[in-house]
Amino acid sequence: MRIPTKIQIDNAYNSISKVAHRTPVLTSSSVNKILGCKAYFKCENFQKVGAFKFRGASNAVFNLSDKLAKKGVCTHSSGNHAAAIALAAKLRGIKANIVMPNNAPAIKRKAVEGYGAIITTCKPTQADREQTLEQIQKETGATFIHPYNNYDVICGQGTAALELLQDYPNLNTILTPVGGGGLFSGTLIYTKECFPNITVYAGEPQNADDAFRSLKDGKLHPSINPDTIADGLRTSLSPLTFNIIQNYANGIITVPENSIILAMRLIWERMKIIIEPSSATTLAVILKHKAQFRDQKTALIISGGNVDLNRLPF
Amino acid sequence: MRIPTKIQIDNAYNSISKVAHRTPVLTSSSVNKILGCKAYFKCENFQKVGAFKFRGASNAVFNLSDKLAKKGVCTHSSGNHAAAIALAAKLRGIKANIVMPNNAPAIKRKAVEGYGAIITTCKPTQADREQTLEQIQKETGATFIHPYNNYDVICGQGTAALELLQDYPNLNTILTPVGGGGLFSGTLIYTKECFPNITVYAGEPQNADDAFRSLKDGKLHPSINPDTIADGLRTSLSPLTFNIIQNYANGIITVPENSIILAMRLIWERMKIIIEPSSATTLAVILKHKAQFRDQKTALIISGGNVDLNRLPF
Repeated sequence: MRIPTKIQIDNAYNSISKVAHRTPVLTSSSVNKILGCKAYFKCENFQKVGAFKFRGASNAVFNLSDKLAKKGVCTHSSGNHAAAIALAAKLRGIKANIVMPNNAPAIKRKAVEGYGAIITTCKPTQADREQTLEQIQKETGATFIHPYNNYDVICGQGTAALELLQDYPNLNTILTPVGGGGLFSGTLIYTKECFPNITVYAGEPQNADDAFRSLKDGKLHPSINPDTIADGLRTSLSPLTFNIIQNYANGIITVPENSIILAMRLIWERMKIIIEPSSATTLAVILKHKAQFRDQKTALIISGGNVDLNRLPF
Repeated sequence: MRIPTKIQIDNAYNSISKVAHRTPVLTSSSVNKILGCKAYFKCENFQKVGAFKFRGASNAVFNLSDKLAKKGVCTHSSGNHAAAIALAAKLRGIKANIVMPNNAPAIKRKAVEGYGAIITTCKPTQADREQTLEQIQKETGATFIHPYNNYDVICGQGTAALELLQDYPNLNTILTPVGGGGLFSGTLIYTKECFPNITVYAGEPQNADDAFRSLKDGKLHPSINPDTIADGLRTSLSPLTFNIIQNYANGIITVPENSIILAMRLIWERMKIIIEPSSATTLAVILKHKAQFRDQKTALIISGGNVDLNRLPF
């Protein structure tokens, strides 16, 4: 299996830096005091569409040949990847077909529509999603851009670590959440090739610990209807991301639901930024293992900030 | 009446830049689309103690002679200025005495205590606040640092505009909230001396429009128990801030309560940052007068982010 390298992430950075935000890295002495380490928050919640997903989506869309691009792109997603593909396609001036389950939140549907994508509704099952998507591919010839089992998407996600390490090359540790593994994979490749001494972990909800179990057992366990508030982390790893994680990861650390909510609130209150539950898993990891991170320069990649303010968990 | 100049704000910047955050300026294309202008958010909600107040407080505390500093500082406040003075005094290694009304929120009391200040409780009346403070001054010789009727405090607050204009010298307009007028005054002095063509307005709640009326009538109207959600803007102007505002301001624009809440929510949802209601008055101004700001490069100084997450207005 072909795995991306640092060079492709450099190329991705050149492709997308005209359209993606270079997100700021925030620090807080009061948070450092609570954690007992020096924490650096790479704020992908400030990225376009409110999540790191725009990096991978725009890299994949921009890397298409003109011939393929003409036929458009498609994907199935009810979340941040859908909005990211829709915006990237709009910026390139091509069509995006998004398959969304009929129970997707109206607000997410509206966001995707706002970027001018064509939405096809399907039943909320994996089988119906895939079947609907296949039909669209057949009819339009559009290129399917998987949210993470995609070489270019992973390279795009790796650009967050690239920017982080340009700003802070002396880190001891980097933490990301892990769901499908796109962000974790891209971060691993870039960090481990350029700074092999930096430790890279992922945080994962205990209630959706398929990546943790996959890494431990050396075989890919699917994620089956996990019950976690971290809605971005309910997906399974893919062959490509699992391969990268097996090659490079220092570990995956699981955290309980209540600690995710606690960490999320702590970041809202102390950092004054809005993050989604998935992003809080990394801080929950540090809170759970304070001694391990003591005095370490630890970066947390905040994956996104798309939260329904009418349904807060606190 | 002696009014600070740009030079003193430059000096303040040199004094405080070792301890204060250089806060980021955020932009959002989706917000720009809604507003019809190019908006630049200077994020003082990311400042130490979660508000611009730390700039003025630390400048005032650091500018004290060693002889005066030895006797400590004091102030009365139940809000951000109290925490700012407490932290600034801690950083200089001197005592801070804070007079707080007995109905101040426990969370604010805790913040001030956390910075090691000595808290004296008083009845929640202006008279009792002032009397208690006077007593402390007599006993300790501590220097009273007023939250805005203070030369050094105003210079400190002006450093937010200084940083903003270093980053974006081509602005058309700057907006700040106005309560006591410290932030507005400092912004006016720096901007109008360096870039006289930039228009500077303040946003004020209709329900607390004492500054608007003062400017219109040419005499200082006190603010009497105003009923506004913007808790940072309930105070009256002072002789010093009123003088500066009369000299320099392009205007004060009032906005209703519901538009403040709407603007606050819009910033939370689109910018992914936590701002307090006071900070939303500026965006409410743009939403109310879209035609006036159309296509203008408009900066909004976000004053702070201290909000009780258990008591959100939406």
